[in-house]
Amino acid sequence: MKTLITPTPTIEWKNGQTRLIDQTKLPLEEIYIETDNYKVVCDAIYRLAIRGAPAIGVAGAYACVLAANKIANDSGFLREFIMKADEIGATRPTAVNLMWAVKQMKENATSFSGNIADLKVALLNLANHIRDDDMNRCHNLGLHGAELIPDHSNVMTICNTGGLATSGIGTALGVIQYAHAQGKKLRVHVCETRPLLQGARLNTWELKRTKTPFTLITDSMAAQTMKKVKIDGIFVGADRIASNGDTANKIGTYSLAVLAKHHGIPFYVAAPLSTVDYEIESGSDIPVEERSPNEVTRIKGVQFTIEDIDVTTTAFDVTPSQLIHGIITEAGVAKYPFKESLEEHRNAS
Amino acid sequence: MKTLITPTPTIEWKNGQTRLIDQTKLPLEEIYIETDNYKVVCDAIYRLAIRGAPAIGVAGAYACVLAANKIANDSGFLREFIMKADEIGATRPTAVNLMWAVKQMKENATSFSGNIADLKVALLNLANHIRDDDMNRCHNLGLHGAELIPDHSNVMTICNTGGLATSGIGTALGVIQYAHAQGKKLRVHVCETRPLLQGARLNTWELKRTKTPFTLITDSMAAQTMKKVKIDGIFVGADRIASNGDTANKIGTYSLAVLAKHHGIPFYVAAPLSTVDYEIESGSDIPVEERSPNEVTRIKGVQFTIEDIDVTTTAFDVTPSQLIHGIITEAGVAKYPFKESLEEHRNAS
Repeated sequence: MKTLITPTPTIEWKNGQTRLIDQTKLPLEEIYIETDNYKVVCDAIYRLAIRGAPAIGVAGAYACVLAANKIANDSGFLREFIMKADEIGATRPTAVNLMWAVKQMKENATSFSGNIADLKVALLNLANHIRDDDMNRCHNLGLHGAELIPDHSNVMTICNTGGLATSGIGTALGVIQYAHAQGKKLRVHVCETRPLLQGARLNTWELKRTKTPFTLITDSMAAQTMKKVKIDGIFVGADRIASNGDTANKIGTYSLAVLAKHHGIPFYVAAPLSTVDYEIESGSDIPVEERSPNEVTRIKGVQFTIEDIDVTTTAFDVTPSQLIHGIITEAGVAKYPFKESLEEHRNAS
Repeated sequence: MKTLITPTPTIEWKNGQTRLIDQTKLPLEEIYIETDNYKVVCDAIYRLAIRGAPAIGVAGAYACVLAANKIANDSGFLREFIMKADEIGATRPTAVNLMWAVKQMKENATSFSGNIADLKVALLNLANHIRDDDMNRCHNLGLHGAELIPDHSNVMTICNTGGLATSGIGTALGVIQYAHAQGKKLRVHVCETRPLLQGARLNTWELKRTKTPFTLITDSMAAQTMKKVKIDGIFVGADRIASNGDTANKIGTYSLAVLAKHHGIPFYVAAPLSTVDYEIESGSDIPVEERSPNEVTRIKGVQFTIEDIDVTTTAFDVTPSQLIHGIITEAGVAKYPFKESLEEHRNAS
């Protein structure tokens, strides 16, 4: 397919193995993990070697293929496959895309009528389809979102939502990079995104790759940057969007939304419709992942505060839909009230 | 004097030398710098081995004494002393206390009528007085501020404003520790304070020392914490307060003030009156220090992003007085409009 930027080699299927870039090593080293063991992929998902809601959906699908390929072609296949697929689906709780992809793989296996060798081929085809479909959706999302970015503008983002967070194009960062690829002059103010510094580590790598101008700021500088620089829009991704538009995303997103409102800056969420959980009414139903205190008290393994202290480890927050100007999906830009507009997007996609 | 908490040994005069705790090594190591060389103190101020507006005022005064003690007792004394005092005063631009202390030392030298040996004794007496006076003012400020903290409460703070930032009692953190020392049950939500992590490094050390319960959060978690926990008040320090109440403080403070307004949480600034710059009308007249990009791109010397990128290095922001519920000084709690109330505090002190 024709994309405006060269896709990032985030995750691929190659010679019976899954190949993924180890995002914990970026931007200082570019190292790839190649494996035929689904547990290695689960571990990669858990320790964030691959992260980003759409990307872990794809990783989950390929992990299911790897798991299936190691199960014998006999009557116990389906039972064992479902068990392992559930194990894969449970590696991270907040992103709905992982559950969504694993659910598709399970349904495919359950409803398949041929023999198990053929089912294994069908599962790989489905995983490849999920990957290509994500690329395609992000491309369309990028085109819709780029229209919201004027020429000669300053935008802000948090966490990494570029090619690394998806099959290769990106959501919020993809939108920004698409606007840049269209020839618009812009500068991205990148929140470093503590605790795990995805902004400082991954966005710098992606933006350098596409030659998009950027400035790195600490998360604590966002308000001051909004006051000092005329920020034209804030673009963030999503790990799960409730049917009313409430959006779970990386911790710090809710803060940006409140600050944007105070400064009169439009605040946009960009995500493929696979991120919308139509089953849940509002953000209060979204499970929020707690992670290790070491992620807060250390950086790259280097300890900088005392041990055995009480630490908040919440990895995500939920931004209420009232603070969101628009949700950019592959079907267009949904507007408040999102219950109806997201439903229209679902029907259109 | 009788204080509610044991003062921190931040900076002292001992056997003709200045002795200060190296705050860049805390909380993992407790190392002291002892020197009779004013340039070592200047360097300590620049690299934040001693920091906090009132503390660098005291450090500046002692640095003047060290400088004076090395100048010959002859007719060139005053000229050389003024030159070195100005060098000391220029080590950091935002905190007004440093300028204020150095100005007092210079005025003392200029107006002194005895011989130079006696002047050197007078300068040490003045520096000791500035230190004791700061301790006394912080004690009174602590008592006034503690009244604003109810029993069974949650408070939030940013940067370090404890004993380490002053002669030993603290401003905003002193207020919190005083409330705890009075027997009130409370928990402090400590923003880690990127880029230099004064919250994570120094507040943890101070709060553990006074056994005050606390929880460490990343700066990006502040909004979510305000939403989830009933925060009863936010207490921050100041590097310089304009006569209208606009307050320069560590980058991230303005963000907390905006978030506090959105969540209906009272936002207090705590600082001795030496922090108020009555000469300037508003915050737009406060010079804001820019520091090294390495402070953003590295933590404890460990690099985590690519080199040669554009980085915002603004160390402070200015919170407009409209977002401030009260300014706690040694004379009480000033209320909006601050121009009049801060003037009353000056007259009362």
